[in-house]
Amino acid sequence: MTFARAFAPATVANVGVGFDILGMAVQGAGDTVEVEMRAEPGVVIESIVGDGGRLPLDPEKNTAAVAANAVLKQIGAGQGVIIRLHKGLPLNSGLGSSAASGVAAAVAVNALFGSLLPKVALLSACLEGEARVSGYHADNAGPSLLGGITLITGTDITQIYHLPVPEDLELALVTPAVDVPTAQARAVLPKSISLHQMVEQTAAVARLVDALYRGDIAAMGAAMEQDRVVEPARAHLMPFLGEVRIAAKEAGACGLVISGAGPTLCAICNSPHIAARVAQRMKEVYDEQGIVSSVQHTRVDRYGAQVELLEA
Amino acid sequence: MTFARAFAPATVANVGVGFDILGMAVQGAGDTVEVEMRAEPGVVIESIVGDGGRLPLDPEKNTAAVAANAVLKQIGAGQGVIIRLHKGLPLNSGLGSSAASGVAAAVAVNALFGSLLPKVALLSACLEGEARVSGYHADNAGPSLLGGITLITGTDITQIYHLPVPEDLELALVTPAVDVPTAQARAVLPKSISLHQMVEQTAAVARLVDALYRGDIAAMGAAMEQDRVVEPARAHLMPFLGEVRIAAKEAGACGLVISGAGPTLCAICNSPHIAARVAQRMKEVYDEQGIVSSVQHTRVDRYGAQVELLEA
Repeated sequence: MTFARAFAPATVANVGVGFDILGMAVQGAGDTVEVEMRAEPGVVIESIVGDGGRLPLDPEKNTAAVAANAVLKQIGAGQGVIIRLHKGLPLNSGLGSSAASGVAAAVAVNALFGSLLPKVALLSACLEGEARVSGYHADNAGPSLLGGITLITGTDITQIYHLPVPEDLELALVTPAVDVPTAQARAVLPKSISLHQMVEQTAAVARLVDALYRGDIAAMGAAMEQDRVVEPARAHLMPFLGEVRIAAKEAGACGLVISGAGPTLCAICNSPHIAARVAQRMKEVYDEQGIVSSVQHTRVDRYGAQVELLEA
Repeated sequence: MTFARAFAPATVANVGVGFDILGMAVQGAGDTVEVEMRAEPGVVIESIVGDGGRLPLDPEKNTAAVAANAVLKQIGAGQGVIIRLHKGLPLNSGLGSSAASGVAAAVAVNALFGSLLPKVALLSACLEGEARVSGYHADNAGPSLLGGITLITGTDITQIYHLPVPEDLELALVTPAVDVPTAQARAVLPKSISLHQMVEQTAAVARLVDALYRGDIAAMGAAMEQDRVVEPARAHLMPFLGEVRIAAKEAGACGLVISGAGPTLCAICNSPHIAARVAQRMKEVYDEQGIVSSVQHTRVDRYGAQVELLEA
């Protein structure tokens, strides 16, 4: 093969009470990476589109290039690749933008070299990319690679599990144009919590997994909002979080959480009609405050990153 | 009716990583309460058998009597009851002994007055009894009343949920004759934990619920043992915990946890044959150390407290 193109979906990490352990892939939005074979070893980034010029072309500092390089090493390739990265996801939006770039690059490079590796073997390469910008964790890269709703109990592929995706689950996402750097969103978290808080948090997580298995979206919405540790610490970084939640609920949403480290907010609903209305209402809240925002209503992506095109 | 007898099963609270939120009812062992109608209001304890004379006959201080009284008030009974309590469970053993007495009493009194209340309406009465001796919490009374494996997210009946019981789940329990007062087992717990510990604990709880739904006893055993908060703090109160765990695993157990606040230890297995062998091996570990112990191999009780006899 001489050319491959792969797509990796956006992801909603945390899902409220599942801080650092849950993530779900989202249909529609995502990043696309094109790779071309080149004779010399190593990775060159030819172009990045859609980032407003903010991402580094230096392959040592770019998630996609680091992940691509890791796959090249893993398969022992003598040749290298030229990368073109198309950002479909805004940076620092809480939608797993950096993870999606790395995942798309890893999948594209693997395809270019004849798909020598099974998809699950690509996780560590994706995490190497992720580590370069936001730490070695899998709550975005895992679901972006594998799809579905994933439980992440560690960084090894054997520690990542699919949970059931309720049949009627619909998502409404709103991304306001405010900056919430992931580092800041991490810095405001409490270093320690009380034992009582731990009991409440574990109870809510248990209830959330139970709700997923039962396909009970109302219970899922209630459980995911029971987070009394992370959201309270971050709420002040998300303008009008309370107002958006009220508007979403009034429009029929079963629950709303911060997506990843924000500022994207994710509401869950039990019908496409309601999700469309919820997305609209969330946007109106920001409109009224003079904050630009983008919305989408979508579903969980069950498949994760995919090869879109492959040319000999 | 003039006479009723009810039985309430022993319970294994916590199930390792599910501290204060999980409990399971156990077949076989339990407490039995007989109640007789009397003309005067209020509760009289006529006898307690099997407690070695340690439990108070004062109805204000006795779990069974407090629960019985609460049911009498709930149904607005003009008459009272005479109670005979048969302890099938040792005190302070980690098997929910006090909860079983209260639950059996509540169920018996309700039956005596024509079962005016549905079973679920008896929880608050059971918890009043439990509160008199060990705090207002439902992780023993809930499963003893309702049976099965329960998720307890609060003290209201609407906050208690049944989780699936894996078809092949077998239990091996060993109760060494050492004293671990619940108050002491509570006092050694950390007041606060790190955010990282919370993430690990929520991941393990999610995995445990996932394993129950999939009927995966090996995964259940691995997940329940992932507790890095409660067991490490209490381990020194449980003599030879490490040795018993090793012996249980060598005999085929999938995992072992402290039952409630101990000293009973509960191993889970995937066949009755293995559970019998595990129970035997656990007992041998204590035998070798000169510690008297009792063992049982059993299963989850799916039904909870039951009326055994009712006479007009």
